Amino acid sequence: MVARTANVSRVAVSRAFNPHASIKPAKRDMILRVAQELNYTPDRAARSMVTGRSHLVGVIVPDVCSPWESQEIDALTTALQAEGFATLLFKTRIDLSMDETLLTYMKGYNPDSVIAFTENVRPQILSRVLDRAVPIYVVYGDDDGAGDAPGGPLTDRLRVVQRTGIEQAVALMQGYGARRIAFLSGVRQSLATVEREKLVRRVLAERGLPPPVLMAGDYTYDTAYRETLSLFRVQGGVDAVFAANDVGAFGVMDALRHELGRRVPEDVQVVGFDDILQAHWKSYNLTTVKIDLIERVQAFVRLILARLRNPGQPALTETIVTRLVVRGTVG
Amino acid sequence: MVARTANVSRVAVSRAFNPHASIKPAKRDMILRVAQELNYTPDRAARSMVTGRSHLVGVIVPDVCSPWESQEIDALTTALQAEGFATLLFKTRIDLSMDETLLTYMKGYNPDSVIAFTENVRPQILSRVLDRAVPIYVVYGDDDGAGDAPGGPLTDRLRVVQRTGIEQAVALMQGYGARRIAFLSGVRQSLATVEREKLVRRVLAERGLPPPVLMAGDYTYDTAYRETLSLFRVQGGVDAVFAANDVGAFGVMDALRHELGRRVPEDVQVVGFDDILQAHWKSYNLTTVKIDLIERVQAFVRLILARLRNPGQPALTETIVTRLVVRGTVG
Repeated sequence: MVARTANVSRVAVSRAFNPHASIKPAKRDMILRVAQELNYTPDRAARSMVTGRSHLVGVIVPDVCSPWESQEIDALTTALQAEGFATLLFKTRIDLSMDETLLTYMKGYNPDSVIAFTENVRPQILSRVLDRAVPIYVVYGDDDGAGDAPGGPLTDRLRVVQRTGIEQAVALMQGYGARRIAFLSGVRQSLATVEREKLVRRVLAERGLPPPVLMAGDYTYDTAYRETLSLFRVQGGVDAVFAANDVGAFGVMDALRHELGRRVPEDVQVVGFDDILQAHWKSYNLTTVKIDLIERVQAFVRLILARLRNPGQPALTETIVTRLVVRGTVG
Repeated sequence: MVARTANVSRVAVSRAFNPHASIKPAKRDMILRVAQELNYTPDRAARSMVTGRSHLVGVIVPDVCSPWESQEIDALTTALQAEGFATLLFKTRIDLSMDETLLTYMKGYNPDSVIAFTENVRPQILSRVLDRAVPIYVVYGDDDGAGDAPGGPLTDRLRVVQRTGIEQAVALMQGYGARRIAFLSGVRQSLATVEREKLVRRVLAERGLPPPVLMAGDYTYDTAYRETLSLFRVQGGVDAVFAANDVGAFGVMDALRHELGRRVPEDVQVVGFDDILQAHWKSYNLTTVKIDLIERVQAFVRLILARLRNPGQPALTETIVTRLVVRGTVG
């Protein structure tokens, strides 16, 4: 109807309604004007019945309010909008598991892709629930649990190589004289933190350093703060703390400076993980292992587009590499 | 089909698939088991064609990565999931305006409700685009631009009373001897910051204090930091800074302490706005005007449910009141 009135092809109408499809601005304006006069909009519910595409990408996260997750969702939403997709948010339970009823519910939205972590929901379960959408799993180790067994579910992967950044961090701490180093973990269900601890342990051994003193964190500031008080008041302290995330490192630093009277980095060195926006704030000025958010989001978008273009192809993998960003907390 | 095989009513099947509808756990498990055997899931695309409900709530935000927005989206997503809705995110342009093509696109998802600010998209435009969904506008002042002119679009409102918290903040600063007070604004397109500045100006006058020294912020840490250097190095400084948001207050504090050698609160008092999670971090321990996130999100959910229950009723308004949270930056 719009195509006929505007005297253009149906493809042109479709392009006009896709904010980022290639079409001449004047032509788009004309088509949108005709569409408005005819009170026409492409209804996604109707269209999704026909094309099998919903233009929705589901994202399963433990929370939206922690800085790393929120910065990732922000960058991802921007990148997805630019490709004509909207972001559909789902939160896990506090223990990182996903309500199975909610998963069934998610299927009803018919997402074109879903981004998840193995600890939130096993690929076997997610694949069974979604059947059409191939999920993308973020994996940190070699044994990623994202299942590529023959006959197993098809899952695409974003692999984060954590070893490079961890090696650089340990070398810098050792170079400035640290010997007794603590590792502050994240929530124990998180595979990222399990892999980080394993790598820290391995790198310390390779460099002739004693095994890490373990601090049981949960990625929050408050727990990091409390664990730091225990470590220094009860167990006698360490030369350096390597935290599994930046927010944890902030809690460590504030406990050291504001309650224990230790200087950072003169008395105790601190290194974080992520490189969130807050890491450069002057109160922290944190040396940290960076996961490049832009690279990461671009990789997600490539995986989604490649899979939609060729739904039957074998599992895809993108890889990003971490690196140390040196600021003021080691030295 | 599922209802017949499981020997239950269709309503029971529908409840079993709504994660938070009231139904006995054993009955839900049985129905879901039967559904799984029959490979049945309620398809939202199909259902939305019939019922006219999408169970999607659109949220239009300038960004997801700033702490306030991310904490709000987190709380909102949790509350919406509990009522069987999913959150659909849309980001505005940097100048806070909304891409009109993207709006048309949004209509295609057929959201049951949309939450927005007047500066992102005018009610007239949003109503025209959505026609079915009544949007909810967050308003801060009396003249809110959310249009209740006769014949104007129908919009529900969440009204935030900012005056109470601002009065308490100014009284506390004055009580501790501040006379020359600066106001650090947010981005100039934000109606929240315009209203905050107006109220600060009014309250200072009422209390016999000189008008505020204006600092042009944009809600970011970096701009607040830079503006503080200018104010103190070029213009001679002030007794206190009232920032339009907490992140701005952090930038002010770090510039004062780490570059200008001033103590907070002994030399300069600082007050923020929002009460984000980071406000209690020991490096800041910020005295701030709190907008209660839980109250705010509960009000959103009540507005959405009330409107869906009775689509034709007149515009609804919920009101929440701000208050001062006293920590360590005034005194």
